[in-house]
Amino acid sequence: MIIALSGGVGGAKLALGLSRILPPEELMVVVNTGDDFEHLGLSISPDIDTVTYTLSGLANREVGWGRHDETWSFMETMESLGGETWFRLGDRDVALHVVRTRRLRAGETLSAVTADLCKRLGIGPRVIPMTDDRVRTRLLTEHGWLDFQDYFVHRRCEPVVRELAFEGAATATPHPAFMAALADPRLQAVVICPSNPFISVEPILAIPGVRAALVACKAPVIAVSPIIAGRAVKGPTAKMMTELGLDPSAGTVAHRYADLLDGYVIDHADMAEVVSIDARVTLAQTMMTTIEDREALARTVLDAAAVLRRRK
Amino acid sequence: MIIALSGGVGGAKLALGLSRILPPEELMVVVNTGDDFEHLGLSISPDIDTVTYTLSGLANREVGWGRHDETWSFMETMESLGGETWFRLGDRDVALHVVRTRRLRAGETLSAVTADLCKRLGIGPRVIPMTDDRVRTRLLTEHGWLDFQDYFVHRRCEPVVRELAFEGAATATPHPAFMAALADPRLQAVVICPSNPFISVEPILAIPGVRAALVACKAPVIAVSPIIAGRAVKGPTAKMMTELGLDPSAGTVAHRYADLLDGYVIDHADMAEVVSIDARVTLAQTMMTTIEDREALARTVLDAAAVLRRRK
Repeated sequence: MIIALSGGVGGAKLALGLSRILPPEELMVVVNTGDDFEHLGLSISPDIDTVTYTLSGLANREVGWGRHDETWSFMETMESLGGETWFRLGDRDVALHVVRTRRLRAGETLSAVTADLCKRLGIGPRVIPMTDDRVRTRLLTEHGWLDFQDYFVHRRCEPVVRELAFEGAATATPHPAFMAALADPRLQAVVICPSNPFISVEPILAIPGVRAALVACKAPVIAVSPIIAGRAVKGPTAKMMTELGLDPSAGTVAHRYADLLDGYVIDHADMAEVVSIDARVTLAQTMMTTIEDREALARTVLDAAAVLRRRK
Repeated sequence: MIIALSGGVGGAKLALGLSRILPPEELMVVVNTGDDFEHLGLSISPDIDTVTYTLSGLANREVGWGRHDETWSFMETMESLGGETWFRLGDRDVALHVVRTRRLRAGETLSAVTADLCKRLGIGPRVIPMTDDRVRTRLLTEHGWLDFQDYFVHRRCEPVVRELAFEGAATATPHPAFMAALADPRLQAVVICPSNPFISVEPILAIPGVRAALVACKAPVIAVSPIIAGRAVKGPTAKMMTELGLDPSAGTVAHRYADLLDGYVIDHADMAEVVSIDARVTLAQTMMTTIEDREALARTVLDAAAVLRRRK
């Protein structure tokens, strides 16, 4: 069994690579829910949706969110009726949010709804939210504290970030299947996907018990750097690091996971970083453009984990 | 000023005819809200929507509900995700419901939201809900009491109706602009559109004060029969009359409005009914197939009202 910790786009790409080389029952993708929010009366889980759309082959790979078979009548009409349109919701996407919202309101857990939606979308691996409790990432900026999607989508990550908080994390319970898998002797590796550490991975690590369980975990913990040559493949990771007074590098990301990291996969372009990283480093092509890139990186990660398992 | 009382399709057709021959400021359409319901977390007002879609030229004239420029990705996806699909909601229609639901939840009245949506849809005449309070039509059938849309859409009007109730009507307040218009000396006529008396017009009449105000009204009250030669143009009017032990005829409808009716427009086909009707009868072509039919019937109604005004 492999556990992959994932945020949105970058994480989902590697999760897809893993899903193509592992039997479905051997992969569990644990997804950040700090990005979740309520919008237009709908409960939206952007990272879970990116992961499920990616794993089901429905993702729009060009824009990195939503579905490739999407239509836009809903949004067009919202616009003409004076509704809020800053968060783009396709017609098919809205249907998923309506189904989820209805079921959550009826008392189902996010993980139960996600499991059922995955089944209906034909997804084999288990996709679970990091917690069924409410966690909300907020950012302190020059405009004060902002809700995540307000910062991320509405303000296009433009505000300067000074601090992050994961509201609700301290009292949240990690998903029991996640914790059970971490303690399972059959666990082969935990893969921290190349997602933004601040807004995608650290919300998962902020839930009580998760970080300690990863440190205690017998299987190797191996991360893939979301930074290539000082730049984020997508999103505000590098900008955010600079704003937080950190050097935007693969090494800095490794440092944030230092206590739990056994292995770290970085791009060939970052070879010089190796000296600053306190984990076994594997060099690879970490930019995932094609489906073959995703599979190749997944194989590299699993091979590196196999080496680490023999050493651990 | 002309007031038109309307339900859905048939009423909206005549309201459209009236809107094409009257200056916008001289027409007020008062719409039944007994059909309103909450579905998929959305506040839906079917009769208001049929009227506004019809007046704005957006209506789908073939099916009699929804928009002609509709797309169906939302519904297709709901189907694939196991959501409820018995009430067909197009992508554009969903946007309108989302906007309305949001605004109602934020504390706006249904009439304020309707007024704004009408403005955005370019509708000139005033369209107002019969009340801003919650009224829900329910039907006693062989399956017990059913919510209106469960009977009307989900069960396709198949259950046998024994009794109707308008929940909330007894404690509802009629829209103040409606009551003010009824008492306005400039009022020229009240037109009861050819809508189903039981489920479209009587919910309006059930609100305390409305029936008395119509009886007391100085302007003539003139109805158009929704029954032509013993059959309803659309919907379950005739079936419902038979089930309620009534003869499905233009005369029976007139009888239900007997205390308030000054004039009644029936189809040439129903000439024999004239003897049973206690109001001044005008014969006309009441089937509205083309836009010219709608205008012609509207003219007939206004002409008949003019004659009644001189007599009253």
